[in-house]
Amino acid sequence: MTQNIYDDAGFFQNYSQLPRSQRGLDGAPEWPALRALLPPLAGAAVLDLGCGFGWFCRFAAGKGAADIVGVDVSERMLARATAQTDAAAVRYERADLERYEPPSGRFDLVYSSLAFHYLVDLPAVFGRVARALKPGGRFVFSVEHPIMTAPRHQTWSEDASGLPVWPVGAYLDEGPRVTDWLAEGVVKQHRTLASYLNLLIGLGLRLRHVEEWGPTPGQIAAEPDWARERERPAFLLIAAERP
Amino acid sequence: MTQNIYDDAGFFQNYSQLPRSQRGLDGAPEWPALRALLPPLAGAAVLDLGCGFGWFCRFAAGKGAADIVGVDVSERMLARATAQTDAAAVRYERADLERYEPPSGRFDLVYSSLAFHYLVDLPAVFGRVARALKPGGRFVFSVEHPIMTAPRHQTWSEDASGLPVWPVGAYLDEGPRVTDWLAEGVVKQHRTLASYLNLLIGLGLRLRHVEEWGPTPGQIAAEPDWARERERPAFLLIAAERP
Repeated sequence: MTQNIYDDAGFFQNYSQLPRSQRGLDGAPEWPALRALLPPLAGAAVLDLGCGFGWFCRFAAGKGAADIVGVDVSERMLARATAQTDAAAVRYERADLERYEPPSGRFDLVYSSLAFHYLVDLPAVFGRVARALKPGGRFVFSVEHPIMTAPRHQTWSEDASGLPVWPVGAYLDEGPRVTDWLAEGVVKQHRTLASYLNLLIGLGLRLRHVEEWGPTPGQIAAEPDWARERERPAFLLIAAERP
Repeated sequence: MTQNIYDDAGFFQNYSQLPRSQRGLDGAPEWPALRALLPPLAGAAVLDLGCGFGWFCRFAAGKGAADIVGVDVSERMLARATAQTDAAAVRYERADLERYEPPSGRFDLVYSSLAFHYLVDLPAVFGRVARALKPGGRFVFSVEHPIMTAPRHQTWSEDASGLPVWPVGAYLDEGPRVTDWLAEGVVKQHRTLASYLNLLIGLGLRLRHVEEWGPTPGQIAAEPDWARERERPAFLLIAAERP
């Protein structure tokens, strides 16, 4: 059973202050890279797993997607998503992603941003995603990069020259990691990069692109604090396709 | 131009003492995992890029491969490979892997163990590999894992609890890394895991399996010193197929 930390009042309050919560997709530095993996959205049927405040659902509606389903477990997030959405093509549904059963063969795109690293039974979820895609449909998602989630203590350190390093440990031991991110005791699931890929391959999906995200030189020029984020990738972005 | 460190007398002497040099494939802890990715070899045409002492070429001959080409840049290694091989199906060729042009559409398997992280122009090499495969042919290779090759200073450290950690830095900055492994000034090329995968995808190959290798519990029971190798993957093993 996945922890529903987004309905924790303190976490929600802190999460709501993040640039990606205040400014939406443009407040997420990995968004341009994730957007580049999307198929054409005009007329498309789209499923967003872990839709949060609904930013992506509204983006898809703006691009002409015909039928958009946003699913999230958080009541607080869906309340705000609903209040901020007036596109008729968008419908929100409250469900635990580990139990949600999307209709089969229905979607041109299944999208998910930074939600899957919370889920315990990812093989079951990915199996349902594979079935929910139309032939030729695409699965595009981001998660925290396994290099990020691996360590028992997730924190920066310095090498002998004083340069920042990210100490990796326990990489091959998959399972829960507890961090204090926006609230104490947030549980995320560490998986190896190979596990994500082999799950998709085993379901008969074809890998189209894998990206280990770090900021571009232009982003670092605008936000010098982000330079450190090139030392180790913060996010993993994957695009796969149902043949 | 790739450094030919294997013809350095001191490096060669030290390399010759490694378990994988003395005991062959069974002296390489990742061999069982790599072997599991191979197609049936009976009657197959096989190309081994960076064949070294010829252990894999002789293994393939023993499994009934009909036509086996081993390529290496090192004169010293090929001299020993030739002296130790009497299988008629095996032919060795001395060439710089960056310039070697295999015949097109000829091989059922292109194999390479721990050679590609020395090469500068990997896109050109992979392009020639893709063309050298028969339709349905498989490309199976291992390299040092990008988590291994990324840091400016490749060394273990300890976390606050005294547990071993591998400090990762410079992960997204691809290019040469100089290490003192068996000799001073050995140059390896760091690439991200995504770069390896996207190169293959871009050539129209289909990814079949990705493995981030660490020792199994059975291997650790036999060699307790290897336990640390589960903290971060030492090798990356990939199997891809020409459709």
